[in-house]
Amino acid sequence: MKKYAVIVAGGSGSRMGKPVPKQFLLLQGKSVLWYSLNTFLSAYDDCAIVLVVPAAYWEAAQAIAGSTIAPERVVIVVGGETRFHSVRNGLKLVEGESVVAVHDGVRCLASVGLVRRCFEEAMRMGSAIPVVDCKDSVRWVEGEGSKPLDRDRIKLVQTPQTFLSSILMGAFERVGEGAGFTDEATVVEAAGHPVHLVEGEVNNIKITLPADLVFAERVVLEMNL
Amino acid sequence: MKKYAVIVAGGSGSRMGKPVPKQFLLLQGKSVLWYSLNTFLSAYDDCAIVLVVPAAYWEAAQAIAGSTIAPERVVIVVGGETRFHSVRNGLKLVEGESVVAVHDGVRCLASVGLVRRCFEEAMRMGSAIPVVDCKDSVRWVEGEGSKPLDRDRIKLVQTPQTFLSSILMGAFERVGEGAGFTDEATVVEAAGHPVHLVEGEVNNIKITLPADLVFAERVVLEMNL
Repeated sequence: MKKYAVIVAGGSGSRMGKPVPKQFLLLQGKSVLWYSLNTFLSAYDDCAIVLVVPAAYWEAAQAIAGSTIAPERVVIVVGGETRFHSVRNGLKLVEGESVVAVHDGVRCLASVGLVRRCFEEAMRMGSAIPVVDCKDSVRWVEGEGSKPLDRDRIKLVQTPQTFLSSILMGAFERVGEGAGFTDEATVVEAAGHPVHLVEGEVNNIKITLPADLVFAERVVLEMNL
Repeated sequence: MKKYAVIVAGGSGSRMGKPVPKQFLLLQGKSVLWYSLNTFLSAYDDCAIVLVVPAAYWEAAQAIAGSTIAPERVVIVVGGETRFHSVRNGLKLVEGESVVAVHDGVRCLASVGLVRRCFEEAMRMGSAIPVVDCKDSVRWVEGEGSKPLDRDRIKLVQTPQTFLSSILMGAFERVGEGAGFTDEATVVEAAGHPVHLVEGEVNNIKITLPADLVFAERVVLEMNL
């Protein structure tokens, strides 16, 4: 079955306090996004990538794609107003019966093993949503107050969120304009499909704060990527 | 008002894959616990510390306490079967009308500013529980399935959890043997008191995995602690 990865790099990265969006920041001389692209390109020889970026970063994205191990498998499209719109733009390039992973461009530490696990489980179950345990106590805010939640029943959701194209594309069509979706799992659920959780990776963090970049640099050095 | 910090270092650290519990691992030549102790000792000249450790690590803890900036303000007691029992053992040394912070020994990156905010808010409001936003999507597991939770209403709970002694000590007495409490906030709530949330710190992580130690080492270097 044909494999696609829609890699979403549409954010402006305002929390990082740097002039460049976080997905374009460098780790050991390569951009965060470069690592994300290469992981999917390495996972499968037949995985095509749809890279979604803000219009202003089209050229930067082209340069990054050109320096990966398989530039011919990367297509760049311009993102939309929200993550939902960006993903929907990317999905327009997905063709035929296929399996599609949607990945945060800033999760550059996802391993090839995790990518393969998500694709395999999605082919078997229809969807694969990587999650990890929460090691902190968790509270739920209600008005002025709050109450504890059972941490053992909480899962933190990562990407790549991976689906059979029939399920994912159908869901994006059915939900229409879908404000308020924070990930693809909720889009698919809103369209009436259950989602299947798989084990994520503790290292597979979203690079959103300077501290994350510090951590990622060390991991990249140690993994010798 | 007299100030106490009960620093809990009772864990065995099995997730770290090292023979020494995580609170005794070294960051730039000093143990994780050393940083935690010094932060409270630095925050207030009149803050006394009750350090709770497993019996087998009594001597190691003594050596660490002896190398802090104020060894005369650190008392060591042996921990109990669970965190709840360890904290309860520590609280036996708290005297008079006071304000008491309970802190995870492995949260060695909490800043002096955070410690002071917690003490001040607890004196004003009765309690102060530091929390941070969750940047991942969150799911709630129900049987075989799961459902999304509104991430904007989720808070991740940290320490130091800080209380007026009358509230905290009373709560520990009232709840009895209290299995299943993951933190002091839930003990105090079980005794009928609301808790007051304050802003935590993104860097104030629990050192539980090798990746955390890597991150902590870099932060410690940069803060020049």
